[in-house]
Amino acid sequence: MINRTGKYTTLFTDGPSILGAGAVAGPKEAQGPLGKGFDKIIYDAKAGADTWEQAESAFQREALITALSKTKLKAEDLDYIFSGDLLNQCISSSNALKEFSIPYLGQYGACSTMAQSLIMAAFVLQSGTAKNCACVTSSHFCSAERQYRFPLEYGGQRTPSAQWTVTGSGCAILGEGKKNSVRITGATVGRILDLGVKDANNMGAAMAPAAAQTILDFFKDTGKNLDDFDRIFTGDLGLVGSKLLYELTLKEGYDLRHKHDDCGMLIFDRDRQDVHAGGSGCGCAASVLCSHILNQMTTGKLRHILFIATGALMSPTSCQQGLSIPCVAHLVELTFL
Amino acid sequence: MINRTGKYTTLFTDGPSILGAGAVAGPKEAQGPLGKGFDKIIYDAKAGADTWEQAESAFQREALITALSKTKLKAEDLDYIFSGDLLNQCISSSNALKEFSIPYLGQYGACSTMAQSLIMAAFVLQSGTAKNCACVTSSHFCSAERQYRFPLEYGGQRTPSAQWTVTGSGCAILGEGKKNSVRITGATVGRILDLGVKDANNMGAAMAPAAAQTILDFFKDTGKNLDDFDRIFTGDLGLVGSKLLYELTLKEGYDLRHKHDDCGMLIFDRDRQDVHAGGSGCGCAASVLCSHILNQMTTGKLRHILFIATGALMSPTSCQQGLSIPCVAHLVELTFL
Repeated sequence: MINRTGKYTTLFTDGPSILGAGAVAGPKEAQGPLGKGFDKIIYDAKAGADTWEQAESAFQREALITALSKTKLKAEDLDYIFSGDLLNQCISSSNALKEFSIPYLGQYGACSTMAQSLIMAAFVLQSGTAKNCACVTSSHFCSAERQYRFPLEYGGQRTPSAQWTVTGSGCAILGEGKKNSVRITGATVGRILDLGVKDANNMGAAMAPAAAQTILDFFKDTGKNLDDFDRIFTGDLGLVGSKLLYELTLKEGYDLRHKHDDCGMLIFDRDRQDVHAGGSGCGCAASVLCSHILNQMTTGKLRHILFIATGALMSPTSCQQGLSIPCVAHLVELTFL
Repeated sequence: MINRTGKYTTLFTDGPSILGAGAVAGPKEAQGPLGKGFDKIIYDAKAGADTWEQAESAFQREALITALSKTKLKAEDLDYIFSGDLLNQCISSSNALKEFSIPYLGQYGACSTMAQSLIMAAFVLQSGTAKNCACVTSSHFCSAERQYRFPLEYGGQRTPSAQWTVTGSGCAILGEGKKNSVRITGATVGRILDLGVKDANNMGAAMAPAAAQTILDFFKDTGKNLDDFDRIFTGDLGLVGSKLLYELTLKEGYDLRHKHDDCGMLIFDRDRQDVHAGGSGCGCAASVLCSHILNQMTTGKLRHILFIATGALMSPTSCQQGLSIPCVAHLVELTFL
């Protein structure tokens, strides 16, 4: 059963369960604080492929296979797969998944894509047309860097507010709600917000207002507040964006500082790993959700959380044309029931 | 009510209605055979904007406003908007829609995006979390040509199999099923198919097998056949792709030749308009659906049709790297009830 609550939020009284999840990461992520939690490390960041883009596809493929291996399902048991990435025309998703022959619904929400995919899958499962769906997203430092910023060989200096795109992928398989599992119990779909930030090397600042808007929408719609949750995770606001999120939500009476973690801040050790403002990318929120966060939920350390993935919807072209960055954030409420 | 039928198809016993639709096109499309059917022509293909990308956003914005104007709804009455385009990171959609503050779910299926969006909206409406959703996609010859092929100023020679990207946008507003309206009665989500075509100037050949696969999936799943339909429309297979579709489906016993139209073939006069193999782009299928096709359905000329939009999921990077083109096709069954 679904209940539309307030203007933007949906609550699920018998929401889908995450039946299995897989997180695959690259060598730099393996050296980070969450390294031991990933299901698989691909130490060759090129994954034996000819190009970085194809390497990213390999990460996504491995995440799907790993997630499936934790369920009793095979690829042909999946009714739909929701997938997306940061590359032009989401090419790493289509190349990753073409061999599986699963009905494919490409999603684009930049780094918010994992949350968007979970929401889409939850709605579609609820409609009755599907029993099992997969959600998978990926990113790769090398394919993203050269597409969005500079050729890798150029060795461009990075600004302090810049974030390091995570090389990794996360996949979650959703199916019928069952006891003793992590379940989707709520969802708030974000609205695009563009407050005029034009600096593609400061995505945290661009995305923070969208994150705040969606979190506040959820609290307003549901009447819930911070005390209801063990932890609140954002996708990849990084250092700059997280601080701005605290400012924006504090104005409305919510002090997130002791309840909040950002996947981009968790995945790297900023003192040791030279990632400036933290990690980013579709693969950041996805791989942290599918390892660190879900592991804590299934082992009883966390019971009730919010997962808000944020996306900066700019393109290299729009940045070169001097346009500001439209942003969006989607929220998923997860509960161990 | 939804019934999953066969492996890939969903049938709706009380499917959503198209409450209103808007089609906006550029000057070349206005001169084509369907010119009089569009709701609005923007004769300045740059739509008063600074760049082609922003012009495309203007087309998409107009399509949404036009579609809303045919309903009793305002933008704030829309629970979700499903949108996408061909540009890197779907930037024309996010820039077009950011001012409306509608919960936004970006879709990427290349030229199949309109069918994908209709399916997503139908599923989401069926889940009970939404009453009204919009689906909008766009394309623009100038923004697409310079992104996928050559700088416009270069005046590159086009191959005979090349298609002309439509400058236009189509938007459909979906809501509760009601009598005497066009309703979504079925949907088949496509699986990615890549038979090795590498020529980005022959997308029809790349996409035809995906179109055939989805159409055959639908017939197999439902037991329906050609006689059940007044017309079968594909998105933008063009001349080359349409012929290949006939070949591929004839092998399985379906002779589409007298039942089939392709939006890319309908929108331009190939003898007169120098578009080579026909029109293409997210805006092609969308603008033809939202004018020509729906107009014929609401005036009683067509009662029962299939709309299959096809997408070539390559990127300029993947083409330059010599990779073949993964393709997908999504099918929507529309019935005037």
